[in-house]
Amino acid sequence: MYAALDIGGTKIAGALVDERGAVVHRAELPTPARESARRMARTVDAVIDALSATAAWSAARAVGIASAGPVDTVSGTVSPVNIPAWRDFPLVDSVSAHPELSFGPEPILLGDAVAMAAAEHWIGAAQGADNALCMVVSTGVGGGFVLGGRLHPGTSGNAGHIGHISVGIDGPPCPCGARGCVEGYASGTAIARYAVETGWSPMPGMQPSAAAVAASARQGDERALAAYDRSARALAAAIAGCAALLEIEVAVIGGGVAQAGDTLFGPLRRHLRSFAALGFMRGLEVRPAALGGDAGLIGAAAAARRHHEEIGVPGSPAVPRSRT
Amino acid sequence: MYAALDIGGTKIAGALVDERGAVVHRAELPTPARESARRMARTVDAVIDALSATAAWSAARAVGIASAGPVDTVSGTVSPVNIPAWRDFPLVDSVSAHPELSFGPEPILLGDAVAMAAAEHWIGAAQGADNALCMVVSTGVGGGFVLGGRLHPGTSGNAGHIGHISVGIDGPPCPCGARGCVEGYASGTAIARYAVETGWSPMPGMQPSAAAVAASARQGDERALAAYDRSARALAAAIAGCAALLEIEVAVIGGGVAQAGDTLFGPLRRHLRSFAALGFMRGLEVRPAALGGDAGLIGAAAAARRHHEEIGVPGSPAVPRSRT
Repeated sequence: MYAALDIGGTKIAGALVDERGAVVHRAELPTPARESARRMARTVDAVIDALSATAAWSAARAVGIASAGPVDTVSGTVSPVNIPAWRDFPLVDSVSAHPELSFGPEPILLGDAVAMAAAEHWIGAAQGADNALCMVVSTGVGGGFVLGGRLHPGTSGNAGHIGHISVGIDGPPCPCGARGCVEGYASGTAIARYAVETGWSPMPGMQPSAAAVAASARQGDERALAAYDRSARALAAAIAGCAALLEIEVAVIGGGVAQAGDTLFGPLRRHLRSFAALGFMRGLEVRPAALGGDAGLIGAAAAARRHHEEIGVPGSPAVPRSRT
Repeated sequence: MYAALDIGGTKIAGALVDERGAVVHRAELPTPARESARRMARTVDAVIDALSATAAWSAARAVGIASAGPVDTVSGTVSPVNIPAWRDFPLVDSVSAHPELSFGPEPILLGDAVAMAAAEHWIGAAQGADNALCMVVSTGVGGGFVLGGRLHPGTSGNAGHIGHISVGIDGPPCPCGARGCVEGYASGTAIARYAVETGWSPMPGMQPSAAAVAASARQGDERALAAYDRSARALAAAIAGCAALLEIEVAVIGGGVAQAGDTLFGPLRRHLRSFAALGFMRGLEVRPAALGGDAGLIGAAAAARRHHEEIGVPGSPAVPRSRT
């Protein structure tokens, strides 16, 4: 059994996850993102309290933490864009200090998109792939890699930042400072913005969101279809780029925009045939994510499990010190 | 001592390289690229003959082969674009069959840009870097990665194909089938073509090459400067993309276009400040390659050495079977 935390801008979730990746217990609280750093940390502690009250807790061998980024896995700190309360917050130290968590190896920290990649590789759509890219396409665009059969989080846990690679050196300026970033074409925000700019308006009673654009696209609305095509083309260029650079064999796409289904995946697969044209890239497959909202938790557990296998004592559950 | 071969469109080179990466003996013949596959193979054999005639040969422990790509390291075959005589040619088998090379582990095959990365990481400009991109920018654009302190050739040896990632989804069509490939902006061919298209002409007595454009740029010619700026911008976007995806800390650039020095590196470093804007990418450095034309040979030797260390018997030179 592994303990997992998933820290996002909206909610703080915790879970106990078993050896097969099943979520056995789950706890969740809203994120007090705009309150103090201490109030945030106490909310995380409260989620751990809820998990540790379960009988299964004593079987937990290691702890994984997925967090909204940027993260710094070297210092164990996080500065999530959507949680202003935390800037360089020492999340690993804070979680380690919880009395119920002073067991086993130090908690392992990873970015949420990297955690999603770990989860999809463990029990999801990237299972069995030696080299895979997993992407989250929603308000923003993020990603994580499996390379050579292992998670590849990079030196500081930030590898896989596919939302901020440029696929348009003459494209629109990005808040990050670059131009033509994938996120500026492909995110849900970008899809809705582009659709509105080109004269689309949502069907009655809907807000102008990527989901509303998808609904119009399913009705055959040309402008809505064009907005998804533009997103798909940027994703295809980025995914093909990863295949050229890293010989990935699978790209898994999750997040809200992937919910559009064929509206996204149809043009994406078509554009991929142009962009991934070199011989060694021909086997590249694109798949929808298999795991939903629990991917962060499952991925955090996957990383904790791997970490435990590598440095832990196999077969001996690390009983919480507070109980020994 | 390691035996190394470097198969290119112009010449077939061979060397004995010592434990510190120094080329001790060198042999070279012109590539009969348009003759038969067999004639090509015999030329490779003749280079091996020349090396094996040296006294140092008996100290060779392993063999590395760098080849123009595409290569397929799984099947041990090569299909170099510039060597029409070889399509899916079984180069590893052919080299292994040479009577003087039937010792030690099977020869290790790698693409020429991956070999360059191995060489620069061993004794060149990427020495000490855990995560590095090494690029060759000349007629075409290629590259190779060091990730986690080790060469990362990818499943079939084709990882690092940075010349064919798109940095312009609305950019010019590329012969590979995609659009806006880095090679189409950044290669020497692209620099000269763009300069000519925008009205530049070479100084008297010079051909319209990237070197001639660089010569004009040094004289302050605006169109020549613009052609290098365009190349540098595409390279900056691509290098920043690799940093976002893989947290590379160093990008090494070699090849003919890098000979332009500050004419290329000046605008490249400037554009990189815009494109590599995220916090974790700020330490990214760009460096000119330290090794020249022997990088392929030295890299082939580096890979052979690594391979030998991993699977060979340390301390026991593998004496050619033909001599035992």
